[in-house]
Amino acid sequence: MAATRISPLLTDLYQLTMLAGYHAEGMAETPAVFDLFFRDIPYRGGYAVFAGLDPALRALEGLRFEADEIDHLASLNIFTADFLDWLAGFSFEGDVDAPEEGTPVFGNQPLLTVRAPLAQAQLVETLLLNIINFQTLVATKAARISRAAGGAPVLEFGLRRAQGPDGAMSVARAACIGGVRSTSNVLAGKVFDLPVKGTHAHSWVMAFDSELEAFRAYARSFPDHCILLVDTVDTLKSGLPNAITVARELRQQGHELFGIRLDSGDLAWLSRQARAMLDEAGFPEVRIVASNELDEEVIHTIRDEGGCIDIYGVGTRLATCAGEGGGALGGVYKLVAIDGRPKMKLTSDISKATLPGPKTVWRLYRPDGSYLQDVITVAGEEPQQGETVYDPVNPAHFRMLDEPFEARPLARTRMQGGRRTNPSPTLSQLADRCQTELDRLPEGTLRMTNPHRYKVSISDSLHQLREQLRRSMMR
Amino acid sequence: MAATRISPLLTDLYQLTMLAGYHAEGMAETPAVFDLFFRDIPYRGGYAVFAGLDPALRALEGLRFEADEIDHLASLNIFTADFLDWLAGFSFEGDVDAPEEGTPVFGNQPLLTVRAPLAQAQLVETLLLNIINFQTLVATKAARISRAAGGAPVLEFGLRRAQGPDGAMSVARAACIGGVRSTSNVLAGKVFDLPVKGTHAHSWVMAFDSELEAFRAYARSFPDHCILLVDTVDTLKSGLPNAITVARELRQQGHELFGIRLDSGDLAWLSRQARAMLDEAGFPEVRIVASNELDEEVIHTIRDEGGCIDIYGVGTRLATCAGEGGGALGGVYKLVAIDGRPKMKLTSDISKATLPGPKTVWRLYRPDGSYLQDVITVAGEEPQQGETVYDPVNPAHFRMLDEPFEARPLARTRMQGGRRTNPSPTLSQLADRCQTELDRLPEGTLRMTNPHRYKVSISDSLHQLREQLRRSMMR
Repeated sequence: MAATRISPLLTDLYQLTMLAGYHAEGMAETPAVFDLFFRDIPYRGGYAVFAGLDPALRALEGLRFEADEIDHLASLNIFTADFLDWLAGFSFEGDVDAPEEGTPVFGNQPLLTVRAPLAQAQLVETLLLNIINFQTLVATKAARISRAAGGAPVLEFGLRRAQGPDGAMSVARAACIGGVRSTSNVLAGKVFDLPVKGTHAHSWVMAFDSELEAFRAYARSFPDHCILLVDTVDTLKSGLPNAITVARELRQQGHELFGIRLDSGDLAWLSRQARAMLDEAGFPEVRIVASNELDEEVIHTIRDEGGCIDIYGVGTRLATCAGEGGGALGGVYKLVAIDGRPKMKLTSDISKATLPGPKTVWRLYRPDGSYLQDVITVAGEEPQQGETVYDPVNPAHFRMLDEPFEARPLARTRMQGGRRTNPSPTLSQLADRCQTELDRLPEGTLRMTNPHRYKVSISDSLHQLREQLRRSMMR
Repeated sequence: MAATRISPLLTDLYQLTMLAGYHAEGMAETPAVFDLFFRDIPYRGGYAVFAGLDPALRALEGLRFEADEIDHLASLNIFTADFLDWLAGFSFEGDVDAPEEGTPVFGNQPLLTVRAPLAQAQLVETLLLNIINFQTLVATKAARISRAAGGAPVLEFGLRRAQGPDGAMSVARAACIGGVRSTSNVLAGKVFDLPVKGTHAHSWVMAFDSELEAFRAYARSFPDHCILLVDTVDTLKSGLPNAITVARELRQQGHELFGIRLDSGDLAWLSRQARAMLDEAGFPEVRIVASNELDEEVIHTIRDEGGCIDIYGVGTRLATCAGEGGGALGGVYKLVAIDGRPKMKLTSDISKATLPGPKTVWRLYRPDGSYLQDVITVAGEEPQQGETVYDPVNPAHFRMLDEPFEARPLARTRMQGGRRTNPSPTLSQLADRCQTELDRLPEGTLRMTNPHRYKVSISDSLHQLREQLRRSMMR
C-alpha cells in the first residue's frame, strides 16, 4: 500500500549483482547521472501526464536493508560477505530533478534525472520505473477520459480489475491527478483524501423479492445519497418506473432522489429515454450515472450521439490502461554521465540512442501563455530566439526558433542529498495543475486520435555533443 | 505486499452502503450463496489457469476493521453509529469452495462459491475479484508463454512495468503457477521461495571505458554465474567477439561462461549467428538468453524460424497481460441463492444471465485420463452417461453424454467457518499440477490461436431450474 515501507529487495536481481560488481571494482562511489524517460507517448496520443513522483521520492527516502533482508541475500550464495556488509549500510543520498506531477510531458525528455554515486543511482532503477511508469500511464489515461467527458464528473471504480491491491491504490491516486477525481475505493479515499462514491450492485436488487422493494429499502437507508441501479430486470420497463415511484415517495418525505445508474445496453439511447422519462415525471434534477466498459472513446461516442449522462463511472479500462498503445509505458532509465564524462548508448537504430550528459528541458511559452515547443539543451545552456534546433530522433529534421517565447525549465530539484526539498502537494492541487497545463497545449495535440505531434527538439550544442560521442565510439 | 494485512477498506464504497442497508433491513445475517466466475476466456485462448486462491483465503481470514478505519468511515457522514458498531465486530465466518490453483478452468463455471451471511458474502466481493481476476489472468498468460517456449525455461522480469509494487509481486506468484517458474524480482523470490535470476544492464557496459573491460569485470565478480549482455555496441561485431574472449579467459581460470543475452534486433536470426559463433569458438554449452518484448506469439515465431534460444526472459507483456482479449479478466461475483431460495439475474441477453442456486462443477475424465468435458449440475446431483446436457449460454444447443467417463467435482471446500481447511501448497506443487492438468486437455484446446472450444454444459435439472425461474420472473 501507499503508506507501507517498500523493501529494497523489490528490485531486479541484476541491480544487486551490478552493485556487487561496482563495489568489487571500486566504482560504487563514482558520481553518476541517470535519466528516466519514455520514447513513445501512450495510447497513440498527443501527450502524457507525469505522475508518481511523490511516492517515488518517499520510497527513495526510506530505502534501507533490514537484517533479515541481508540474511536472505546471503542465503542466495552469490554475494560476498564484504559486499553484504556494505549493503547493510546502504541509503540513497542522491539528488533528483523532475517536473511537478500533473505536468504534460513528451517522448525523449528526461522525467527524472538522478545524480548519485553509481551504486545508489543503479539500485533504484527498478523501483523508480515501477512507480513512474504505471502512475504516468494511469494519469494519462485519466486525462484522456476526463477530457472526453467534457465537464462531467468521472468516477474511478477499477478496484476489482486492477492489478492487485496496490495496483488499485496507484490507479486511484494517479487517476485523480489526470482529472478522474473521485473513486469507489474506500481505502484510497482514506489514504489519499479523495472523495469516495458509490451506488449499489445487482445483488442488492436480487436479495429482495422485487426490484421496487429493493429500491425502497435503499432509499430508506440513504434518502439523500440514493442512486438506483435500474438494469437488473429491464431498464425502461421496470427499473425506470420503479425508480420514479421511489423518487415520488422520497419527495413526499422531503428528500430528492440523487440519481439512477445505467450499467448495460446502448447507453447513448437508454440515457436519452431515461432523461425523457425522468423529466416527464417531474424529476429533471435526477442525475443519470453510466458505467460498463467505458473509456475515452466510448464516452466520446455517447456524447456525440446526444447521450444524456451526468456522471461517468470508469473501471476496467482505466485500471488496466487499456487501448492501443496502452497497457504499459515503456519508460527506461539510462546512464548519461559517469565521473563527469557524458555517456550514451550507441546503437545502429538512432531511435534507441540516448541523449548524453546532464541536460535541461526547457518549455517555451508563447506570449499568450500557450506552449510553443520544448527544447532539450546541455545543462546550463538556455535556448535563444533565432537558434537552430534538431529533432532528437532524426537530426536531418531541424528548424529555427523564430517565434518569440519565454523559456522555463520543466524540472526542479525535488530531492537533495536523499531528502525531499518540498512538502507533498495535495492531489487536488496536482489535478488543478494538470487541467490548467493541458489547456495550454495546442488544440490539435489534445485530439484523441491522430493528434498533432508537439515538438520536442534538442539544441545545437546537445546535437554536437551527441555527434562527437558517436564519432569517438565508432572509432 | 503478499504478507501484509489487507484493509477491509480496500473495497468499493457500495459494498459498505449495501451492508448498511442490509443491516438496517435486518437482512445482514440471511444465509446467501455467491458465485465468482468469468464468461470469456482471456487472450481468445482455449483455457484459463485458476490462481489467487491462497492469497484470497488469507485475506478473508484476516478481515477485521481497526479502530481508525471505523473512525474514517464515521467521518464520511453517511453511516449510522449503530451500523459502525456492528462493523467493528465484523469478521468473515463463511465457507468457500474452489478448485486447486493451477487447475484449467473455463467460462461460466463457478471458480469460487461463497456461502456466508449476506453481509459477509457481499463485503468480500471486491477483494476476491481484485485478487482472483488478476492472478488468474497472469497464470493463464504464463501458461501460454511457457507452452510456446517448449521445454525452455522462461524467466519473469516484469517488475519495472508491473502495476505498482504489489502488482509485480502478484505477477511473480501467478506466473510461477502457470509455468514461468523463476523471476528477477528479489523480494518475490524471498516471499514466495522462487528461484531468482539476472544478468546485467546496458548501464554496466556504459560505466566502463570499453565493452571488453566491462565483460571482464563482470566475470571477475561472477565467474560461475556470468551472463553477458552483448548488444550495447554491436551484437555480432563487438558483443559476441568480446564475450568469446572472456569465455576463453574464464576457461583458463577453471570457470565456464554461463551465457550471453540478446536484447534487441531480430532474435531468431541473431541467435542463430550467435550459436554458430559460440560453437565455432568451442563454447557449445554457453546458453543464449533472449529478451525484448517477448510473449507467446513472438516466442512461437522465433522457434518456428529455427532460433537457437535456451532461456527466454519475459517482462512487459507478461506483467501487463498484454494481447487481444488480455488486460483484464472479466470475473464477476453474483448472488445465486438467498435464504435457501435460488436467484438469478434476469436479462434479455441470456449470455449475461447467471446460473441459479448452489451448483457442482463436474470434470468428466475419459478412461485414458484426458478431459472429456465439464458439466455443471444442481449441487448434489451427479452427471450420468446417456444424460442430455445443454450449452449454458444457448440452451438450443444440447448433446448427449454418450462416451464413458469418470466424473470428479472440480471444487473442494477450502474454507469452513472462516478458517482455511488446508495448508498453503507450495508454488512449485501448483506449477507441477498446472502442467500435468494442461496435458490432459484436448490438443486443439491448447492451440494458441483459434483453439477448439472445450465443452462446458449444464445438466438437465439445472436447465429446468433456470427456465422455471425465468418464467416466474417474467410474470
